[in-house]
Amino acid sequence: MMYGYFRANRHHQRVVFDVFYRNNPSGNGYVVAAGLEQVVWYLHHLSFGEEELTYLRGLGLFSEEFLDMLRDFRFSGDVYAVPEGTIVFPNEPLVRVEGPICEVQLLESAMLAFINHQSLIATKAQRIVDAAATAPGKVGPVIEMGLRRAQNIDASVFGARAAFIGGCQGTSNVQAGQCFDIPVMGTMGHSWIQSFPSELDAFRAYADTFPDATVLLIDTYDVLKSGIQNAITVAKEMEAQGRKLLGVRIDSGDLAYLSKHVRRVLDDAGLTYVGIVASSDLDEWTIRDLIIQGAAITSWGVGTKLITSYDTPALGGVYKLVAQERDGQMTPSIKVSENANKVTNPGKKKVLRFTVNGHASADLIALDHETFDISKPLELFDPVHTYKRKVIRNYEVEELLVPVYLEGKLVYELPNLKDIRRHVESGLALFSKEILRPIQPHIYHVDLSKALWELKQRLLHEWRPDEA
Amino acid sequence: MMYGYFRANRHHQRVVFDVFYRNNPSGNGYVVAAGLEQVVWYLHHLSFGEEELTYLRGLGLFSEEFLDMLRDFRFSGDVYAVPEGTIVFPNEPLVRVEGPICEVQLLESAMLAFINHQSLIATKAQRIVDAAATAPGKVGPVIEMGLRRAQNIDASVFGARAAFIGGCQGTSNVQAGQCFDIPVMGTMGHSWIQSFPSELDAFRAYADTFPDATVLLIDTYDVLKSGIQNAITVAKEMEAQGRKLLGVRIDSGDLAYLSKHVRRVLDDAGLTYVGIVASSDLDEWTIRDLIIQGAAITSWGVGTKLITSYDTPALGGVYKLVAQERDGQMTPSIKVSENANKVTNPGKKKVLRFTVNGHASADLIALDHETFDISKPLELFDPVHTYKRKVIRNYEVEELLVPVYLEGKLVYELPNLKDIRRHVESGLALFSKEILRPIQPHIYHVDLSKALWELKQRLLHEWRPDEA
Repeated sequence: MMYGYFRANRHHQRVVFDVFYRNNPSGNGYVVAAGLEQVVWYLHHLSFGEEELTYLRGLGLFSEEFLDMLRDFRFSGDVYAVPEGTIVFPNEPLVRVEGPICEVQLLESAMLAFINHQSLIATKAQRIVDAAATAPGKVGPVIEMGLRRAQNIDASVFGARAAFIGGCQGTSNVQAGQCFDIPVMGTMGHSWIQSFPSELDAFRAYADTFPDATVLLIDTYDVLKSGIQNAITVAKEMEAQGRKLLGVRIDSGDLAYLSKHVRRVLDDAGLTYVGIVASSDLDEWTIRDLIIQGAAITSWGVGTKLITSYDTPALGGVYKLVAQERDGQMTPSIKVSENANKVTNPGKKKVLRFTVNGHASADLIALDHETFDISKPLELFDPVHTYKRKVIRNYEVEELLVPVYLEGKLVYELPNLKDIRRHVESGLALFSKEILRPIQPHIYHVDLSKALWELKQRLLHEWRPDEA
Repeated sequence: MMYGYFRANRHHQRVVFDVFYRNNPSGNGYVVAAGLEQVVWYLHHLSFGEEELTYLRGLGLFSEEFLDMLRDFRFSGDVYAVPEGTIVFPNEPLVRVEGPICEVQLLESAMLAFINHQSLIATKAQRIVDAAATAPGKVGPVIEMGLRRAQNIDASVFGARAAFIGGCQGTSNVQAGQCFDIPVMGTMGHSWIQSFPSELDAFRAYADTFPDATVLLIDTYDVLKSGIQNAITVAKEMEAQGRKLLGVRIDSGDLAYLSKHVRRVLDDAGLTYVGIVASSDLDEWTIRDLIIQGAAITSWGVGTKLITSYDTPALGGVYKLVAQERDGQMTPSIKVSENANKVTNPGKKKVLRFTVNGHASADLIALDHETFDISKPLELFDPVHTYKRKVIRNYEVEELLVPVYLEGKLVYELPNLKDIRRHVESGLALFSKEILRPIQPHIYHVDLSKALWELKQRLLHEWRPDEA
């Protein structure tokens, strides 16, 4: 397509594209936006080296003039985006890119892969962390442990990052720990236990190696007959040296039954401080039910189901042309579809979040140039069932899209991961529990401004297939 | 764990680990093994640079002696593996690694991520390609188009590679095309059409840009009222210049209904040679049903459902200790579990495939030192229901695991991707259609040799939890 625009001598034509998605994953009511840092990294490094140019030349499709243009390629446009960790909803622009069509088109696939992937995993992690938070009393932390089941290495490393944004407190992925300063946590595998003459020897060697972070895997042979007994022996030996066993881990069997028994045996031995880590194909639903059944689990190691977002392994973010320069004028563009749900919102837009007394009341997708007088009541209406209206008063308004690149220059300071996590938490605090429910949530209002709605109707009705 | 072995002064102890999986994905009857080239790439590059060492030092967990050992790290062991594209079954070792425990342990996570991911996608691709092959007459090629929905970039690039192994004929992923010499294929997106004053202008510009590979996307406005009419106009203009329109693409609406109509309209215009490409959330089941309903589709663009293996987004490959040196002797090791299905097969093993008259009869997991006299009948028995026995005669036998690394040296010539694909095809040809059925397949026999079975029973019964 870049080559086509180049050949048609249209590559300098300015356009606006939106990234948005249509359906929340996993039956959730929202998405935790993530992946922007990777988009920035990509824009920063995006160029064509001689190796790439040689490959493209070899395809026999492109002119030398085009390849010369690629050689000099650098992104010169504007990017607005919601900060990572923002709570977002279907159809809201998460990224808005404006610039020459050739450049803006090129970004599509990689940018979508970054945003789709990291937002998906951050959202899944938030669901799992919320499940762990249903426990009475102290909430057990969730640790991301999915590397070996991730869809290759990027998925594991950026997935661990996204999982931290979604509230996980650590990862077993050391590369992610190094890249993003995420706390790394881990225990032994079963092979560690097997490789020693006895379980007790294996436990002692581990306690000796990591005296301040000893978590013993107690299910290699038999949790109750062997594992917990040996763990208690080691815990007592550690006490004699003035140290404390951090925890035991159960990775198979019935986690509710075993954790309760293990808790009792530990408590009877005076080891009330020893934690119980559970892992084994956990997801938000299993964690919920284990808690309901009184499982005595103090932290959760979650692998496959988190790192792949197993029940919904893709977020369907798309990248759509919404405006283009025509006769020197930025003109809204619409994509019509048989499926009404797939008709795009035309024009260069912004997203506003209205809050009343610290509670999110509705989001509004509006045209970029629109202004709202917050001293006056505002009437919002449902963009499909327009008879559904509501008036808000005394509201505050936040604009979700912030400038990231202006004329090819990075103007945004990338926040650190802990700040991104805090942004998720303060964002979630605006919404009612009903909207945050993990299944069949109350649907949050995302309306169109009157001006945008009218523009959309006009473009829809102006368009005639026989004239296309 | 490496550090633990180092501190226990056991890091030179030799061990054997197996990679295997327990359950086929997507209800399939087998897996197409893939990912070995990436394992080789990893072993070749695996080392610790100063940046990594600084990070690890900063964790405050490791001694300087250990970090010095990492600085000098290189893999010195043996790797045996099934070649990429081999048809494999649950519990069969796909990779067998032997070497010092410290080295062998380190490989676990990355190696599993490579093998699990690429085998998963190759298998899913094979299912989809098989579905396309149910069409009467000429089989429509399948093109991988999932980049924007992949779980980040590695997943897209190595996923495109795995999809080619699974029988896809091309990819829309240009980076994968460059890295692995996969044919790149693509069409315009909707934004191309939108960005021109009319659909016809857009089609003409594209035909002008790619005269030998013009595929026109005809569903931006209305397939029947607009898209196909404009495509015919352009096809006629191309004919007048002595060129041929390659195809039209439909990306929404009912693909059976639309493709049949479009076929009729094209044929009525004398354009019987123009192909019809379909895309839009396709998977093996939708393709099957579209074919059953007589859809006139000549090639299939498959995205999300393929690149994520949507219905089963992880293959559960594991890495288990099966033998270790004790008193200078390589000794089999077993991992016991409450779940009988999770008890490992102990010992250093090989996998044999027995064929009779070009038909696969059974696979046998045997101890590495075992030999079989192929001039004599061989009795095989089910490792769980041991009364189920079968005798094979006049068989040929193939050993599936081949040497890849010996004493840290690569001894295997990596085949090119087309040869890997041919290996899949010749491998599949050994199996009956019942075993290859996409749902509820006939279960292929994977038995244990008598010696392995007896070893396993002995180790299971010798083991006592109270002695562990």
